[in-house]
Amino acid sequence: MPDIPAKMRALVLKQDGYSGTATGPSIEHLSDWCALAEIPVPQPKASEVLVRIGLANVNPSDLHYIKGEYGQPRRKGVPAGFEGMGEVVAAGEDEAAQKLLGQRVAVSASRGGSGVWAEYALTDARAVVPLHPKLSDADAAALIVNPMTAWAMLDLVRQAGAKGFVMTAGASQLGKLMARLAKEMGLACVATVRREEHRSPLEGLGVGTVLNTERDDFDEMLVAAMRQVQPTILLDAVADRHSAEIFAAMPAGARWVIYGKLSPEAPALPNLGQMVFMRKKIEGFWLTEWMARASPESRRAAFEKVQERFVSGAWKTDVAATLSLDEALDGLAEALSGLNRGKVLIKPS
Amino acid sequence: MPDIPAKMRALVLKQDGYSGTATGPSIEHLSDWCALAEIPVPQPKASEVLVRIGLANVNPSDLHYIKGEYGQPRRKGVPAGFEGMGEVVAAGEDEAAQKLLGQRVAVSASRGGSGVWAEYALTDARAVVPLHPKLSDADAAALIVNPMTAWAMLDLVRQAGAKGFVMTAGASQLGKLMARLAKEMGLACVATVRREEHRSPLEGLGVGTVLNTERDDFDEMLVAAMRQVQPTILLDAVADRHSAEIFAAMPAGARWVIYGKLSPEAPALPNLGQMVFMRKKIEGFWLTEWMARASPESRRAAFEKVQERFVSGAWKTDVAATLSLDEALDGLAEALSGLNRGKVLIKPS
Repeated sequence: MPDIPAKMRALVLKQDGYSGTATGPSIEHLSDWCALAEIPVPQPKASEVLVRIGLANVNPSDLHYIKGEYGQPRRKGVPAGFEGMGEVVAAGEDEAAQKLLGQRVAVSASRGGSGVWAEYALTDARAVVPLHPKLSDADAAALIVNPMTAWAMLDLVRQAGAKGFVMTAGASQLGKLMARLAKEMGLACVATVRREEHRSPLEGLGVGTVLNTERDDFDEMLVAAMRQVQPTILLDAVADRHSAEIFAAMPAGARWVIYGKLSPEAPALPNLGQMVFMRKKIEGFWLTEWMARASPESRRAAFEKVQERFVSGAWKTDVAATLSLDEALDGLAEALSGLNRGKVLIKPS
Repeated sequence: MPDIPAKMRALVLKQDGYSGTATGPSIEHLSDWCALAEIPVPQPKASEVLVRIGLANVNPSDLHYIKGEYGQPRRKGVPAGFEGMGEVVAAGEDEAAQKLLGQRVAVSASRGGSGVWAEYALTDARAVVPLHPKLSDADAAALIVNPMTAWAMLDLVRQAGAKGFVMTAGASQLGKLMARLAKEMGLACVATVRREEHRSPLEGLGVGTVLNTERDDFDEMLVAAMRQVQPTILLDAVADRHSAEIFAAMPAGARWVIYGKLSPEAPALPNLGQMVFMRKKIEGFWLTEWMARASPESRRAAFEKVQERFVSGAWKTDVAATLSLDEALDGLAEALSGLNRGKVLIKPS
């Protein structure tokens, strides 16, 4: 076990609670929301573990959260960051926590714990995943939020008996993971993008139909694609008027599954006929909820299957930049501006 | 069997298809949408039956439909009217149709048939319900759309394991039926109304909380009621900003079940947190769909239970006016203006 210092450096939240705004996951300066501070290293109790963070990830949900626009209230002075990887260096007295001591793990933040944009993070034993020795640190730092969401959502598509699905924000890391998984599972996939240059990478991953929402012929292409593929699930990270248009063009019985809100736009509720006569439904998806409901066995199995794909090279995490805590404070916003080139990671020490 | 004439009088549609508008279920003059015409009496084939109409009902869905704002295209020259009662006077060759000959039945219109605002209506044998001899003609004419919807939707509430529900447009005939059924089933009910005078009739039917959406204190009353009753299903006939507000105030896991659109307003989709973190869902309910999915046995059982309640006097259909076809053409709009006083019925002959 390495020595654990009393103090650590961390990017901590500058505000408490919710902001009441809905401006979406983009920032101009990280320093508007977070400060680089030296704070006490937290101590794990009961089922908690302390993880020395090797690499932390930056997801859209982190940006929603630090801006006070996520489904959980901010806690001023507490480190931000929902996802990362590292080594368990201390553990509470519970057996589940003690068993993890010394292990290399993927970490997600838990309620009451502390965030991973810090040298150390406190979280619950249920929120860490022991790692395959051959999994790279970068893949490990981005293991939970995107890959598990991709896995869980395509499992939802499969369990719904759908032959095909639509995903918005297809060029995102999550979109690419879902594209690969769809091909493996034999599911027809229609993806939307906002730039023409995102088309061929997705087609290369086996996506049958890529629709550019910014093109003038989007409406016609959409109707043609819906008629041909007949997708009955919309996996939606955007929730704007294009999403509403896609949902309206989908066949009877379609489900609009919202898991993100990249756009600050609030589209109108679909018309009566869509919901009543065409039996369409609107719902949300949240990985935390999925993991809480899944049995320990199926959660473990899902993590194993996801890690196998990274180890075998079938999946990979594209990294656009890796920043120190200091570099992140000044440079995160700029590094994120090319989001679709790959993940931006934070290396706390 | 009575003699069947070659011609009949009927209120027939003046337009084809959809209008593309969304102005809601109100009309200024029925003559804008329907003409009183003499047309051939249709002849039943296969599983069809011909019903001599005793009384026809006027529901909001009829108004949506004649205006081209319902989920089915209009057919110019074909009689309007979705629901009524009468006697089966001719039948196609199928056994299911033949068995109904001479029976007094409740009628709903079927795809490919003709409407009930006419001396005779053609419909499918599956769309008629043989009547209890003690059921009044008025109760029979309004048996399917409202009572069966009330039954099916409270069955949905019960099956969802909810302890309580919210219903909008509580002062409607359907609202009153649901209030009575909720009391029988021991379900807590919160109802919304738009006028203060609708409060006490609902309270008299056992509705625990009646909220007036037009009062200045609606917001506070809503929050207090949601906290106290914790209703997890919203049965919604209106789908306006008040509905959206109610949904947002409901506890985690709530379902917004839309079955009507009394308001032409299109509220914005609820925010991300409502759908994702609070696991809320939006869906539709359509009786036709429910009846198509229900087994013949459970459909028959439901109709029996609903008829029993009318025969015993536990339920009753309030009738505000009964109009002939001629009177309806000129006076339906005015008769409907006091909708909450009771049903407006049409007596074709």
